[in-house]
Amino acid sequence: MKGKLYGVGVGPGDPDQLTLAACKILRSAGIICPATSSSEKESLALQIARQAVDISGKIEPLEFPMTDDEEKLKSAWHKAGLQVRRHLKSGLDVAFITLGDPLLYSTYIYLLEELQSCEENFEVETVPGVTAVTGCSSCLNLPLVRGDEKLAVVPSGRDGPAGSDELEKIVKNFETIVLLKVSQSFADIKKKLAKMELQDRAVFVSRYGQKGERIVTDLEKVKADEVDYLSSIIINKNNSHLLEKGAG
Amino acid sequence: MKGKLYGVGVGPGDPDQLTLAACKILRSAGIICPATSSSEKESLALQIARQAVDISGKIEPLEFPMTDDEEKLKSAWHKAGLQVRRHLKSGLDVAFITLGDPLLYSTYIYLLEELQSCEENFEVETVPGVTAVTGCSSCLNLPLVRGDEKLAVVPSGRDGPAGSDELEKIVKNFETIVLLKVSQSFADIKKKLAKMELQDRAVFVSRYGQKGERIVTDLEKVKADEVDYLSSIIINKNNSHLLEKGAG
Repeated sequence: MKGKLYGVGVGPGDPDQLTLAACKILRSAGIICPATSSSEKESLALQIARQAVDISGKIEPLEFPMTDDEEKLKSAWHKAGLQVRRHLKSGLDVAFITLGDPLLYSTYIYLLEELQSCEENFEVETVPGVTAVTGCSSCLNLPLVRGDEKLAVVPSGRDGPAGSDELEKIVKNFETIVLLKVSQSFADIKKKLAKMELQDRAVFVSRYGQKGERIVTDLEKVKADEVDYLSSIIINKNNSHLLEKGAG
Repeated sequence: MKGKLYGVGVGPGDPDQLTLAACKILRSAGIICPATSSSEKESLALQIARQAVDISGKIEPLEFPMTDDEEKLKSAWHKAGLQVRRHLKSGLDVAFITLGDPLLYSTYIYLLEELQSCEENFEVETVPGVTAVTGCSSCLNLPLVRGDEKLAVVPSGRDGPAGSDELEKIVKNFETIVLLKVSQSFADIKKKLAKMELQDRAVFVSRYGQKGERIVTDLEKVKADEVDYLSSIIINKNNSHLLEKGAG
């Protein structure tokens, strides 16, 4: 019998935020695959997973290079797909582990598509995880949306909406906006929020639930060159509690 | 010593989607409070929680009426706040349990604000949960967003964006849109999606992970008068896999 691929979200940082389903699969799977950008660095998903469940002896990283080069990426996804298919064909269940949720900005999506587009018909199950979006809010006890309010989740890399007028449009139409991965455009976002007089309605959260966690309610205190890759800004236009609840 | 309030997300339906943190708190808390709309009906959050952890003997529902009457609502929140504060003052930890995540469209937000606005300084901890947004996608192995794509989460009650031109604007600017609670405006949403030629990029998910779960990729097969309150539509403009992956 062929093995099954599980895409397992391990949550944003705290190992206690793994779900019961995630723990069960980490225990039962024959192979645990984290993504690594180089063969030397241990992935954050792996660090989280191994604090919750003993997965030693069955870890096999998949290499996903940090590059914008489409050809290199496609080749890496294809290679990872072959690596996983080999195990599935031999009857082993494979758990690909990923930070947050597997279907929200995760490399799991590319692995999933490699498997869906190949001829063999492998069984796949996606196991959702707690996302940074709700995780970051929870560490501040900060309501995200209520009633008819709308939420926008926006990645904010160099070419993202922070570099255009798009942010202003989104802020105008949504009550709450979570900007993810703000490191490359942090200075620009800060400027735009000040222009919209929303700097008091924004919170900066970095490495939530992990070593080096930072929660800052005064964006002026955050220096652009110190902003980590895994940093978010939550903008909540309606929340008057933000000012009082500050962590620093 | 005063007790602590925990806002605990139990996920969208499957008890295996509770986090380890949620289970620990359900075990240790002295009082477990679900919200009920009437004193007779058992809440869905409670049904989920009790399948994961034995919480019998410490359940105390809080009444939140299903009404738009602001005065009645405020009075109910205040009463619930008093009920919880009494337990906290007596030294008991209270866990308010909620479907999905506590900070995303949950009545927990109102309880939290009752406690934050009172004079006693109670300790509060919010425990994030898996949301219907990622849960519904995971049951279809359906990628939500990747790379620079943007996600909009939009409640769609009678007066929500489905009843105006807003839906079209949002669909234009976001790659993926999750419409929540679509029962009241289902027929209207269906018409708008057809007009935008997006009916093939939409999936209907109802009662995910629960008894009576429905996943339908052909919206024509869903009758407006059968749509349950806890129903979502996921619209993913870029996902060509949707058509092939249909469940019905």
